[in-house]
Amino acid sequence: MQTIGILVNKGKPKARVILKELILLLEARGAGVRLEPDMAESLERMDLALTVEEFPDSVDLVFVLGGDGTLLGVARQLAPYQIPILGFNLGYLGFLSEAEPDSLSSAVDRVLAGDYTIEHRLMLDAEVVRNGHSLEKSVALNDVGIAKGSFSRMITSTVFMDGEYLGTYSGDGLIVSTPTGSTAYSLSCGGPIVWPGVRCVLLTPICPHTLTSRPMVLPAESVLEIKVSATHHDLGLTIDGQLGYRLQVDDIIRVKASRFVTSLIKWKERNFFEVVRKKLQGEQEVVEERT
Amino acid sequence: MQTIGILVNKGKPKARVILKELILLLEARGAGVRLEPDMAESLERMDLALTVEEFPDSVDLVFVLGGDGTLLGVARQLAPYQIPILGFNLGYLGFLSEAEPDSLSSAVDRVLAGDYTIEHRLMLDAEVVRNGHSLEKSVALNDVGIAKGSFSRMITSTVFMDGEYLGTYSGDGLIVSTPTGSTAYSLSCGGPIVWPGVRCVLLTPICPHTLTSRPMVLPAESVLEIKVSATHHDLGLTIDGQLGYRLQVDDIIRVKASRFVTSLIKWKERNFFEVVRKKLQGEQEVVEERT
Amino acid sequence: MQTIGILVNKGKPKARVILKELILLLEARGAGVRLEPDMAESLERMDLALTVEEFPDSVDLVFVLGGDGTLLGVARQLAPYQIPILGFNLGYLGFLSEAEPDSLSSAVDRVLAGDYTIEHRLMLDAEVVRNGHSLEKSVALNDVGIAKGSFSRMITSTVFMDGEYLGTYSGDGLIVSTPTGSTAYSLSCGGPIVWPGVRCVLLTPICPHTLTSRPMVLPAESVLEIKVSATHHDLGLTIDGQLGYRLQVDDIIRVKASRFVTSLIKWKERNFFEVVRKKLQGEQEVVEERT
Amino acid sequence: MQTIGILVNKGKPKARVILKELILLLEARGAGVRLEPDMAESLERMDLALTVEEFPDSVDLVFVLGGDGTLLGVARQLAPYQIPILGFNLGYLGFLSEAEPDSLSSAVDRVLAGDYTIEHRLMLDAEVVRNGHSLEKSVALNDVGIAKGSFSRMITSTVFMDGEYLGTYSGDGLIVSTPTGSTAYSLSCGGPIVWPGVRCVLLTPICPHTLTSRPMVLPAESVLEIKVSATHHDLGLTIDGQLGYRLQVDDIIRVKASRFVTSLIKWKERNFFEVVRKKLQGEQEVVEERT
Repeated sequence: MQTIGILVNKGKPKARVILKELILLLEARGAGVRLEPDMAESLERMDLALTVEEFPDSVDLVFVLGGDGTLLGVARQLAPYQIPILGFNLGYLGFLSEAEPDSLSSAVDRVLAGDYTIEHRLMLDAEVVRNGHSLEKSVALNDVGIAKGSFSRMITSTVFMDGEYLGTYSGDGLIVSTPTGSTAYSLSCGGPIVWPGVRCVLLTPICPHTLTSRPMVLPAESVLEIKVSATHHDLGLTIDGQLGYRLQVDDIIRVKASRFVTSLIKWKERNFFEVVRKKLQGEQEVVEERT
Repeated sequence: MQTIGILVNKGKPKARVILKELILLLEARGAGVRLEPDMAESLERMDLALTVEEFPDSVDLVFVLGGDGTLLGVARQLAPYQIPILGFNLGYLGFLSEAEPDSLSSAVDRVLAGDYTIEHRLMLDAEVVRNGHSLEKSVALNDVGIAKGSFSRMITSTVFMDGEYLGTYSGDGLIVSTPTGSTAYSLSCGGPIVWPGVRCVLLTPICPHTLTSRPMVLPAESVLEIKVSATHHDLGLTIDGQLGYRLQVDDIIRVKASRFVTSLIKWKERNFFEVVRKKLQGEQEVVEERT
Repeated sequence: MQTIGILVNKGKPKARVILKELILLLEARGAGVRLEPDMAESLERMDLALTVEEFPDSVDLVFVLGGDGTLLGVARQLAPYQIPILGFNLGYLGFLSEAEPDSLSSAVDRVLAGDYTIEHRLMLDAEVVRNGHSLEKSVALNDVGIAKGSFSRMITSTVFMDGEYLGTYSGDGLIVSTPTGSTAYSLSCGGPIVWPGVRCVLLTPICPHTLTSRPMVLPAESVLEIKVSATHHDLGLTIDGQLGYRLQVDDIIRVKASRFVTSLIKWKERNFFEVVRKKLQGEQEVVEERT
Repeated sequence: MQTIGILVNKGKPKARVILKELILLLEARGAGVRLEPDMAESLERMDLALTVEEFPDSVDLVFVLGGDGTLLGVARQLAPYQIPILGFNLGYLGFLSEAEPDSLSSAVDRVLAGDYTIEHRLMLDAEVVRNGHSLEKSVALNDVGIAKGSFSRMITSTVFMDGEYLGTYSGDGLIVSTPTGSTAYSLSCGGPIVWPGVRCVLLTPICPHTLTSRPMVLPAESVLEIKVSATHHDLGLTIDGQLGYRLQVDDIIRVKASRFVTSLIKWKERNFFEVVRKKLQGEQEVVEERT
């Protein structure tokens, strides 16, 4: 018997509706279900309560209800445990969420039958080193961003790759992104779209002062060290655009591929193509016709 | 009594249907109609036949059925005569076409009642000078493009503005665009969107070899002279992406604001905003959500 | 007899050297000189002391020693008074500074002989409206920026132009720039270079979430109103990248051309071309040669 | 005893000078030298003459004198034979050429001592399929480009990846690039810089009509099939920007990683970093200072 942990974005009313249906479907098929205690309580199913910290010991798979943002947080939290994750998008198209809310029953059948593939997504380890001491460590599924505050004029970052001086970037900051994160913040900053399977990280400058600075596709094995300076002292490090740490001038941010990966459940017949086409290729051609 | 000349893109079947309805509506209101001879013949209304060359003497306004591309051609042809033009878009949103095919009757009423404004759109005069002799002259509503052929490696263009050396551009070519043309080819090449009323021309490099080359917004009064060179001899000049002239190395292309303008009929309440919003701002946000 | 006020960036040692030489040159030619009190004191020339506030009554021209950043601050401070300003660049090429430090004597001669032109540069009035009350007002020579903080995920801005809905922008923020500011922050964000004389303002999105959002060139007469919202509350307004105000969600930022302009002293024979060529066209072609 | 084949760009006078010196240095150290017959004849050293076709049987290494463009041609020609290539740049910085002309003696010593590494660069196989028949086949080190002619309005390309529909691109064309080619034409079109070791190909649209089209980083194992259509019939395929084939509407261009690679000789201590820094990071910061 398989046990499914279900994590829910509580801010989305629709998630609760889908959650109830999923519990019914899973239990009808003999699968176990686990929920976070507050969610279990609100459904009066305290028998299903389990803290996320306890998930690794008890659950075989995790369902995430709530969009790509919710899934990013779950992926970081469960990074060390290699539990496969299936995202249910709640009505809008997501890059990470595979299952549609209107075919829950079929999704549950496939999952329980093992009718899926697992895609291993590269994650990043980020570490802040201050005066030689490691202060903060975090894992990221999308990206590690170094950004100026709203009043800061500019950050200057010196980047080293595997100990070798790569370049100096002045501007609003820098993003180190995984292929998964290539469709997120990096894309807004002019970075390319990277197919999930490519073994690389992206280094994307944010509004660079130097017009020749361009996004770079670097080997996944690279260790990047970024030393930041700024005239004003409002500097931040962000993890997946969700966690933030205040940086100080001369901090070094070390980023490299994590030994952890995110294991995403993927239907065999469906893939990245469709989402890219729908979200990024657009149907509409917006430039005035020349014919 | 007003006389309306109607010009039709014969490649679009829908245009013919609308044409017939427009003739009915106009004649019912006592307006005169003129058509190109072949179109008049195909409708068995030879009484309406008039060549476009004769339009300036007889028609007060021109209706164009067929999309922005058709309107560009009409605008060039009628440039010297200042005849107001109203474009009817045939089902898809256009930047230049103002009237919707599903409200023909109301459009005709407004036009005949003079219930509209006229927007004067900047046009360009382009001239090819070879060995000191002026060879080709043309007027453009959208843009004047200088482009390499499919096998050429690169064009190098030296640009002078009002006789002063502006810069050297190497790459696939250069576009000189009006504000009207800013939403056409220039936009594909990274140029900005220019509001119709701004008195300027755009100089947009096409895939420049030098990464610091950027689109420039120049005063409408500028006289630009562009001298082209290329290792291979496949060089072309295009007018509105519709007319083409073969260039030779060392040709000088002189571009400046024309004394002619295109007079577009605009409904008072409707404007550029809506088209920009619908075509260019999109509703969809395509970058992955960061929240 | 003309009186020259001289303002100095005190952080640049070279400025002090040039200041002394300028005083000698000016006084030798019978011109009056005025300095800020602390600078006058440090040179033991208290007879020349005058606060900047008193400049408008007594000085005919202002010299600025210190780079484009210093000149921006002076331009805002003196905006209401129409005093012509001459910038002396201190060794590196500037867009706003006209005089070279190695030809001080010739610069002084030309200024005193009136051998120059005055270029009037568009400035912006920016105003923050909160709950219907006008809170902050400022004038800008380069740009008005609305930006997220280092931890904020995204700002959504709704923009109205002359009361009409223009569009909604999500991303890191928005810049409203003058032609003068087009070579500053807007350029880093993908905006075009605008020739000083063009009557327009630029609206440049910063790392927009929507890939179809593009820089726009709008008429200088436009009144732009930008209403900001953000999930996190770290929002800032910057003026010329130098002054900052904390914004709140639902604040409206109103930006329009100021009735004030900056009057820059320009040598007749020299102009914007050279600086653009040197700084932006580059000499080096950086893309790999295809030949 | 090692035998070195030397290939020379005959259009560069400097190449001949260096060639003579290299022959002296190599022969003094007991190495064999081979030259193309016309070059051997012009140096009156017919004893060294060998056609390039015969190189694979007789030479251990190839020296290329003449810049990256020359090296590209040699790499394609020698692709099947895995002969290591060392490029001597003739005075300007190249991405592919490793040896400086002012340290010929040391370069020769290192090569003969085997004091170098070999970098294997991904190449592409391109094939034109017309009416089901394979027409043209070529190998590319930089890129395979599909481009419109100077008068064509637009190409529409439908792209399939591993048989799956990837998207439709309208615009000036498409580039499929290796990491090596990422600093060439693709960079002019907005593509990222790809580190040599990353196993990927780039798909970069040229001036796309659809503003959401972005460069994509795809797995090196992908088989791309590109079907082209155009309103006008001036379509070209280019290989490394050097070879050209005329395409017809409905041709399919199939591109995939070649089984051949280019083996570049690299000094251990020197690498891609320096060239990228010098050519692409620039020293100059071109955007106006905001401080």
